[in-house]
Amino acid sequence: MQQADTLARTGDRIAFGQLVELLTTILVRHGANDHVAEIIARNCAMCERDGCTSHGVFRMAGYASSLDCGWVDGTAVPTVEDAAPAYCRVDARNGFAQPALESAREISVDKARRTGLAAIAIRGSHHLSALWPDVEPFARGGLIAFSVVNSFRCTVPHGGDRPLFGTNPIAFAAPRAGDDPLVFDMATSAIPNGDVQIAARTGQPLPQGVGVDANGAPTTNPGAVLNGGALLTFGGHKGSALSMMVELLAAGLTGGHFSHEFDWSGHDGAQTPHTGQFVLLIDPQHAGGRPFGERVETLIKDMRSAGVQRLPADRRYRNRKRAEREGIRIGAEERARLDALLEG
Amino acid sequence: MQQADTLARTGDRIAFGQLVELLTTILVRHGANDHVAEIIARNCAMCERDGCTSHGVFRMAGYASSLDCGWVDGTAVPTVEDAAPAYCRVDARNGFAQPALESAREISVDKARRTGLAAIAIRGSHHLSALWPDVEPFARGGLIAFSVVNSFRCTVPHGGDRPLFGTNPIAFAAPRAGDDPLVFDMATSAIPNGDVQIAARTGQPLPQGVGVDANGAPTTNPGAVLNGGALLTFGGHKGSALSMMVELLAAGLTGGHFSHEFDWSGHDGAQTPHTGQFVLLIDPQHAGGRPFGERVETLIKDMRSAGVQRLPADRRYRNRKRAEREGIRIGAEERARLDALLEG
Repeated sequence: MQQADTLARTGDRIAFGQLVELLTTILVRHGANDHVAEIIARNCAMCERDGCTSHGVFRMAGYASSLDCGWVDGTAVPTVEDAAPAYCRVDARNGFAQPALESAREISVDKARRTGLAAIAIRGSHHLSALWPDVEPFARGGLIAFSVVNSFRCTVPHGGDRPLFGTNPIAFAAPRAGDDPLVFDMATSAIPNGDVQIAARTGQPLPQGVGVDANGAPTTNPGAVLNGGALLTFGGHKGSALSMMVELLAAGLTGGHFSHEFDWSGHDGAQTPHTGQFVLLIDPQHAGGRPFGERVETLIKDMRSAGVQRLPADRRYRNRKRAEREGIRIGAEERARLDALLEG
Repeated sequence: MQQADTLARTGDRIAFGQLVELLTTILVRHGANDHVAEIIARNCAMCERDGCTSHGVFRMAGYASSLDCGWVDGTAVPTVEDAAPAYCRVDARNGFAQPALESAREISVDKARRTGLAAIAIRGSHHLSALWPDVEPFARGGLIAFSVVNSFRCTVPHGGDRPLFGTNPIAFAAPRAGDDPLVFDMATSAIPNGDVQIAARTGQPLPQGVGVDANGAPTTNPGAVLNGGALLTFGGHKGSALSMMVELLAAGLTGGHFSHEFDWSGHDGAQTPHTGQFVLLIDPQHAGGRPFGERVETLIKDMRSAGVQRLPADRRYRNRKRAEREGIRIGAEERARLDALLEG
């Protein structure tokens, strides 16, 4: 209860480290071990800090209920297999994807440094967060990182008449010379599922063209999308082809479940998709020629000259800096929800 | 002239092998050596055969004029550098990208088999074709292949006010168990440049929302897009982020030019973008678990059950089968253009 008291004492702002402690305590309370709880808590607090509220503390109820009902194993110890000089496989053993990735970090970075590339193929994993926290740290270490994760059946393939794919995001991070990495993280569905849930909670309509109701008719009602409806892919057939690629890499290749393959109907409270994740690392030091980080700077400078005012991660970095100065704002309602999760 | 005679004799249909011979003769006539000419001719004939007319014999004038003016070197001998166990670099030495890729095929397939992954980083290369012919053969050999190539300044980054990126396609090919590979090839611009050129030639308007004129105003006039206007990215900011990724991988990483960096103003007739290309190979045999090709079959079967009637490469494979039976149709106008190129 110490963390909840601290939170209460500082009004609606909390320091990053304190938020991590609070979320860790909640996750341990719901059955995760210290190691797993700390990784998920840090990830979740990073999302909240950077203004990705759809993957921030909003997700804690989903983590807690998925642990409570035994759907995800918060004590799983991932096994890393050194499959080939540039390829490692990780069996998350029904645990979260982030500790599985963490367990393969050292070996995969070493592989990329030696061979130029590394694949981390994670199966049997649960991913309920944004994807940028997985790739950004590799870019801070000088590597290019690309990752895809599939999720749960909620998106209609282009030309189809019912949902099959997940929101299936693609994330990419590139190191810059002397600045925060260039990072993007995009759902291949027209919008992320978390945004639909937040719209449903706040009563906001969805944009046109992102979802259909249970009859397949276009709708802007988030409740209709969540209750038997589905999302569409972004960019029509192109986003759909990318979403298919995500299924094939994150699940087909890794040995995880496709988004439509796992059955959580017997697990009341299950909210974490039980799928797989694929991460690719490239060491640009093997590229030769001009240093890659400087080339990234050149492209960014020229993009700014062409009128581009905002890079993909700009908003996150701005929010991060503000949170470092002022703490992270947790509203009263959200605080009450966290307090309730702390109780059980 | 034998090939042109054959073409004339069979009316408006020509066999694939004969078309390759004809196009080879044209390219040699314009300065390519036999090896380079045969590779480009085969690539171009494959596009025509598969119904990708915007990258088929339509492109021959661009190849010829780029060779004629000395912009591209049709006799370049690419150099392959074995940079690391999973990474090879190729300097195309101002030649075409396809012979450069061909020169690295054996070493890169061997790398992928041994390490699980292989990167082929091509610089100083010219690519004027579709990207699927580059990835499909790797998938026929059991590998997953992913490739990106940048092109020339013709696409406005999202949020920008002038063109910077190329059409920057992404191609992906996955082997299937007992069927032709699953392949897609998509421009990250709203439509490919070849489609704009064909629309201009045939007097067809463009779809809404794909291009702007020289003042940045939306237009459906292909001539306005080609003369000082520009394309937009597909899917708004998401397609733009992917296009940026293509610039970074195909040029930033390889050592090639970004789409806006090369200057062809002094080369009247130059039509081949002088950039770079990145290819990634993954050997799914290192994945463990169920065979990847069977997992691809499962996903495709389930996509069909969800109402998807057409896979990305279906139309190409259908056209290919018909061309194998009936030959490739070359209209009278196109034939006259080829005959003119054969003359000089």
